[in-house]
Parts: sequence; C-alpha cells; structure tokens
Amino acid sequence: MDQTKNRQIVLASRPKGMPSKENFRFVEGPVPTPGQGEFLVRTAYVSVDPYMRGRMNDAKSYVPPFPLEKVIVGGVIGRVVASRHPDFQEGDIVTGRLGWQDYSISNGEGVHKVSPAAAPVTTALGILGMPGLTAYFGLLEIGQPKPGETVVVSGAAGAVGTVVGQIAKLKGCRVVGIAGSEEKIAYLTNELGFDAAINYKSDNLRQVVKDACPDGVDVYFDNVGGTITDVVMTQLNYQARIVICGQIALYNLEKPDVGPRILSQLLINSAMMKGFIVSDFKDKTREGLAQLTTWLQEGKLRYRENIVEGFENIPEAFLGLFRGENIGKQLVKIADL
Amino acid sequence: MDQTKNRQIVLASRPKGMPSKENFRFVEGPVPTPGQGEFLVRTAYVSVDPYMRGRMNDAKSYVPPFPLEKVIVGGVIGRVVASRHPDFQEGDIVTGRLGWQDYSISNGEGVHKVSPAAAPVTTALGILGMPGLTAYFGLLEIGQPKPGETVVVSGAAGAVGTVVGQIAKLKGCRVVGIAGSEEKIAYLTNELGFDAAINYKSDNLRQVVKDACPDGVDVYFDNVGGTITDVVMTQLNYQARIVICGQIALYNLEKPDVGPRILSQLLINSAMMKGFIVSDFKDKTREGLAQLTTWLQEGKLRYRENIVEGFENIPEAFLGLFRGENIGKQLVKIADL
Repeated sequence: MDQTKNRQIVLASRPKGMPSKENFRFVEGPVPTPGQGEFLVRTAYVSVDPYMRGRMNDAKSYVPPFPLEKVIVGGVIGRVVASRHPDFQEGDIVTGRLGWQDYSISNGEGVHKVSPAAAPVTTALGILGMPGLTAYFGLLEIGQPKPGETVVVSGAAGAVGTVVGQIAKLKGCRVVGIAGSEEKIAYLTNELGFDAAINYKSDNLRQVVKDACPDGVDVYFDNVGGTITDVVMTQLNYQARIVICGQIALYNLEKPDVGPRILSQLLINSAMMKGFIVSDFKDKTREGLAQLTTWLQEGKLRYRENIVEGFENIPEAFLGLFRGENIGKQLVKIADL
Repeated sequence: MDQTKNRQIVLASRPKGMPSKENFRFVEGPVPTPGQGEFLVRTAYVSVDPYMRGRMNDAKSYVPPFPLEKVIVGGVIGRVVASRHPDFQEGDIVTGRLGWQDYSISNGEGVHKVSPAAAPVTTALGILGMPGLTAYFGLLEIGQPKPGETVVVSGAAGAVGTVVGQIAKLKGCRVVGIAGSEEKIAYLTNELGFDAAINYKSDNLRQVVKDACPDGVDVYFDNVGGTITDVVMTQLNYQARIVICGQIALYNLEKPDVGPRILSQLLINSAMMKGFIVSDFKDKTREGLAQLTTWLQEGKLRYRENIVEGFENIPEAFLGLFRGENIGKQLVKIADL
C-alpha cells in the first residue's frame, strides 16, 4: 500500500434507522507528522463495535456523537512508526481509540502498549480489551453472580456475551445463552461450556426460556433489549440483577419503541437493573485486565475472532454486527502489524 | 357496638380492573377465644394501603394473594383484651397485620407493642410503621441521596411520599414532589418544605418536570409508574438511582400496559433501578424506627392522617386510595382504643 497517504473513513451522514454504506465516506490525506509530545501510529487492526451505532446519532448517549465529516473514532491496534513522546518508542505496539484511518497522531492519552508476550495482540480489542472488561465488570460488579445461580446472557455469541458466559461458569453458575443461529447455539454449548443456549427465533420463546431456566433467572446480562428481554423479565427470581450492557435490537429503530412495562416485574421481585459503560469502572481496569489475562493464560477462557481483511471492508464489517453475522469479536485487518 | 359479635370483611371476588364494593362482603361471627400462647386483640384502627390491591389478584406478587372468603389481612392498631401469651398483657396496645375485623387472635408473630409515650399511636400505621419504614429504607438504602442532589418523588402526598421528601430534605437534597391536586401541591411546598411540587395533570408534563429539575434527576422514588415515570425517566443524570416502591397507576389495569422502553435510558446514564418491599430490610427495622422516631420527636418530620370513622367505611376508604383522595396516611377508626 501507499505509505505516503492516509486513508480515512468519515461520517458522511447520520443514519435514520439501519445504517448503510452511504453514511460513510472514504477520503485520503497526507500522513500526519507528530509534534513534540506526540507519536504516529500505523493502524493494523480496526475494531467495529455495536456501541458505535449510538455515536452516529446526534443525540445524548453515554459517549458524544461522532461529528459529521470527521474520522470515525474507534478502537485500533497499531505500531508506533515515529515518536516525539518520551513514553512511546518506534516499534511499540499500542491500542487506543484512534479511528478508522491508516495513520493516527496521539499524545498518549487513552493509548496503551500491548505486549505480544501476554497473548495474541488482537485480544487487546477483544477479550483483553473493551469487550472483555465490559463483560468482567458488568457481570461481577453489577450482576454479582453466586454459585448455583442461573445467569442468562443475550447476544451470547458476541464479543461481550461469550466472555460473560464463561466467567459465570467460572463462578459456578448455570449459564444460559441466547443467540440468533444454530451455529452460535452449537458454539456456546459445545465449545464454551454453556449449560444451555436458546435460539431467540424459536417459537414460543417464553416457554423455551422457562424450560432452560427451571429455577428462574438470578442474573440477566442484556446486550440486546426488545422482545428477548421482555421474555426474560417474566422469569426473574427474588432479588434478581439485570445488567444492561447493550440494546442492539433497538439501535436501528427509527422511532423509540414501546413494550411491556417492566417496573412491576422489578417491584414484585425486589429486582435490580443497572445500565453501565466500561469506563464506569476505569479505576479497576488494571485488576480486571490482570484477572482476564490470568484466566486466558490458564486456558479457562476461550475466544473467537472474526477478522475481515481490507480497509475498504470496514463499513461492511460494522454493518454486519447488526445482521448478527459475527461469532466472537469482529475485527478488520488493514495492514500487517 | 355489640361486643359479642366479630364483624369481618372478606374477599368476595377478585376485581377485574378497578375494585369495587362488590369485591368485599361483610360477615359476622362470634368473638374468638384465645388458646394457650395466644391473645385476643380488639381492633381500633384499620390501615388501608395501595399494596393490598395486588393481593386481591390471583397472581404472583411480593405477597401471596388474599384467599377468597377469608378476612382481608392488613395492618391494624388495637388493644389486647384477653391474653394467654406470656409477652402480651391485657391492656397492651399492639400493631400487626391482623385484618379487617373487630377481633383478632394472634400468637404474637408479627405483632408489636406500641408505646403511646413515643408518639400518637396511629403513627404506628404511618410514619412510624410500614409506610415510614418503606420511605426510609427505599430512599436511603436504595436511592442513596447525596447533599445537593435532586430527588423526585411521585405519589408525593401519600403516606410514603410525604416521608420520602422530608427525609431527602434532611439529607440536603433539592426535593420535587409529583401529585395530583392543587391542594396536595400546596401541602408539599407550604407545609412539608418541598422545593417544588408538580401537578401531574399539567399540560406538557415533560417541560414542567424539566423546569422543576434544572440540574436533572439524581434519585427518583416511584410510587406511581406509568406515564409519570416515563417523563421522569427522560431527565435522569449519570448514575441516577430509581427506587420502585409502587406502581399504583398500573394496579387497576385490566391488561398489562405498554409504554416507552426505558432500558436505553438506564444504559446511557449508567442508571440503576431497583424494586423493593419493606421486608427486604427487616434486619434493620429497629434502626429505621429509632431514627424516624427521633426525627419525629425533634419536629424534623411532619405527617398528616386522614381518619374515616366506621367499620362499614373500610372498603370505601380503600377504594379512595385509587382515586387519589387522601393526603398522608389513610386510616379507618372502628372503635375507641
């Protein structure tokens, strides 16, 4: 590829409903030069994540909207190729929210070095990155699963859900995953050790969930929302905890959705529901990462990555998240590391 | 009145939607005689409470359904008139869930003595009883208000809401009450010191709530549910806490209601929502009661009681709760203490 140009993807327009390729525009500029206290990163892997859909809207969310005509900002892994920063040297492998572009300038804020000795570097965008930490803190800090309890996770085959279910198993829980294909169901039960997995496209989902959770639901880790969550909410136990991590079923709706009111379910079960974003737990990032790394090295956690090649395929990989195409972490490789 | 007969009110039928007098039946029986380890209570005051509506249904709730043709069980204050129990003497004033009847037999379980020296005895059914403790634990244990935060309470003029708002003021919060009449609004702001009070029948309720909460909502104590709650949910701050105490707007609906999905609001604000029942905190009852009694004796808490006279008026007093008729605690006096 041409190392004198910087390919970038900017937000061309805000989607109404399901986003499409037309919401993105490919542009090219010169490779930037780091100033004093800065360094230049050559991007190798780009992460596409469901939460980014919220930033495409011009509305209050837990992260501010992407500005129009600016580079889409998201997690990447890359290598430092020039540095005028004391803590980052040429050759360092780093991760951070640097964006959908070949080259990024950073002052080091929010950028961390990745050690290839600990685990394959791509895990820094998955099980040892934002999705893994999201699973770890959401489940353990909010869900607080106890041995013998039933933990249900929606979006179970995704980058977060796969980690949630495995940690819940490590904590001695009965784990039930909800996902959208037979391939995902098989992966969860055969490869990740989930006790049961449910295809949400099943007829009579309520009965299927009930059958999979004969002792009710103690913890529900929700990545999805909508009708799947409506069903799970009918099966809560006393003092159940519902962790709201994502609502992917709702992100692309053109109007706010209506559904059954759920406050009565919380009331009659003394149940707790909490939304969160991984940065709520930023003071504990080191602890979480150390534990996840240990479990991974001990072989107690497994993961899968779905890596598409080619800068031009980034938007399509992102859009695929909303069609439920990926198992595990979706990445795009745009250059060798 | 005839002291040889025991008037009782039994559940005659389960209501569909709004209950009516026809769901209750007046019966009479002989005055029971306490056996060994039991005592006889002559009821003086009967409490009517919104939560009792849930027990009229034949559905799972946080308390089991009232059986048909059995005495309606609810909180009362009465005097021990005969005792074969070592801990209760004739003449003791007691409170407990003994039911809508002149005379009750108890073995002491769930029955407590009331000291007329501490406060007027009727407070044992209100600010120093279940409603007061509900307010105390819900607000402080779940809501965890901090000085300077904005606390909104719906059903603000009721037995629970009036205490919630006053405790929040004691904790240094800005307190906004939501209620359904101008008389209630005036009571909250003029007599109880709420910073603002909103009539939920206002046009453009969302704007009215927004104006009353210029810094957003940190704690929402919900007694009501439905569209009022929908509006408050649009004004949450980061890490807001929503305490689900009651959903009186929904209790009399014939079908489960639908409304805007609120999980996205919890997600983008890292907000927490929890249902509860006062018995979740039964280990702390003594502490809560001691604090409420102290505040009351210091003049830091005020209360109002609405006392209707006459056994025959119990059902109507209960039904009035759902018409929003009462300010403060609704009681029925059926005999002198």
